Amino acid sequence: MQKPPLAPAIILSEPQLGENIGACARAMANFGLSDLRLVNPRDGWPNEKAEAMAAGAAGIIEAARVFESVEHAIGKLQLVYASTARDRTMAKPVLTPAEAARRLREAAGRGVHTGLLFGNERAGLTNDEVALADCIVTIPTETSGFASLNLGQAVLLLGYEWFKAGDDTPAEQIDHSVQLPATREELILLFEHLEEELEKGGFLFPPGNRPGMIRNLRSILHRAQLTDQEVRTLRGVIVALTKGKKRGNPPL
Amino acid sequence: MQKPPLAPAIILSEPQLGENIGACARAMANFGLSDLRLVNPRDGWPNEKAEAMAAGAAGIIEAARVFESVEHAIGKLQLVYASTARDRTMAKPVLTPAEAARRLREAAGRGVHTGLLFGNERAGLTNDEVALADCIVTIPTETSGFASLNLGQAVLLLGYEWFKAGDDTPAEQIDHSVQLPATREELILLFEHLEEELEKGGFLFPPGNRPGMIRNLRSILHRAQLTDQEVRTLRGVIVALTKGKKRGNPPL
Repeated sequence: MQKPPLAPAIILSEPQLGENIGACARAMANFGLSDLRLVNPRDGWPNEKAEAMAAGAAGIIEAARVFESVEHAIGKLQLVYASTARDRTMAKPVLTPAEAARRLREAAGRGVHTGLLFGNERAGLTNDEVALADCIVTIPTETSGFASLNLGQAVLLLGYEWFKAGDDTPAEQIDHSVQLPATREELILLFEHLEEELEKGGFLFPPGNRPGMIRNLRSILHRAQLTDQEVRTLRGVIVALTKGKKRGNPPL
Repeated sequence: MQKPPLAPAIILSEPQLGENIGACARAMANFGLSDLRLVNPRDGWPNEKAEAMAAGAAGIIEAARVFESVEHAIGKLQLVYASTARDRTMAKPVLTPAEAARRLREAAGRGVHTGLLFGNERAGLTNDEVALADCIVTIPTETSGFASLNLGQAVLLLGYEWFKAGDDTPAEQIDHSVQLPATREELILLFEHLEEELEKGGFLFPPGNRPGMIRNLRSILHRAQLTDQEVRTLRGVIVALTKGKKRGNPPL
């Protein structure tokens, strides 16, 4: 099996609240990231609140490394993108999260060490910090109203895109492992059963409308993409509905 | 201007913590969703903690509606997807968030009223609740380790995909509104300036290597995709470096 590409390091510059560091670690764990780097965390390190919030991602918190500057934190990396929402008048490419994830995966696949740099909760990244990055990543949000992603949310969304870029889950899956799709024959027997009973009940009337009515009913049942079990269930439904009638139950 | 398609309603079934309801409202606001529906919120409604957490999304909390059952909450909707991570042995299509968002937008564009249904923090959706939906949406996560998305994160990721499905931000943008890309002429003058000074400094030696060395240097500078301002800056750099030499400053 091919070794999975090395996931990007997450670098938090001067994060303030331990809870947010913990939330970042959880978001990372969900999407297969593990290398957390902290630049001068305001409340020191280790941080109990970060550990409490990290829950199942405690391993990431324990392995987190602390650096004295962004320069040191990214020193050994070869490709670094900075996450920022603010407009910068810098001639630096601004990528969507999906495009950034695609490029990070492509680079990581070639053995390049990558990282995603995030600013603190209050002020984000400084221009000098952004200048250290190769590109800017900006998460698109609704700008007409309120829009404000916190640190944990930004890490979550970029982690999600990283994961997606390497994920081959099909857009649509139907679980037919237990229940198989009905054969055409089973479907046709269902149609005929239903139509026979409807004929008896006087539903397919007048005769001139019969072919169109049958097509409509068959079309509904086709659209439902029935499994073989569901066909049997519907056959039982028809029996149950018509059995009552044969017994001559009075109408309610 | 075309009216934007109606965003999906977010239906939370029996949510427990007010903080989580508030986090959902914030996530919704970021991505242009506004119709929040609560089915039997555990701690009653209104909820101070939800309001506090919602911050700038207070309008969504104020307009939220409470229903006594999922059936009532989704009664007027025409297309409902259920968000769940658990495997269900139901013959119901399972969509990726991106595919779900694409279909919801497509339906909303035709005037269809849509909704996304989420279970509570502890147990998620029941099978009976899932059975009310047209499709299941499952957020892909790293299954080999710890993976657990909370309610606010799930709403954030699906809201993000909804927004993205209607967002036409280019994958890569370079801000040339202030600074224009350099013309070829400006670049060539920079190359010639640099090469003239390097010639004087004896760098382009031996002569047989000269063409290859020049190509390498030009290639580096091309790759940098310089703006006109940056070309002027680099010309200044060359002047500054060589002026020192002409003054005959002693080496340090």
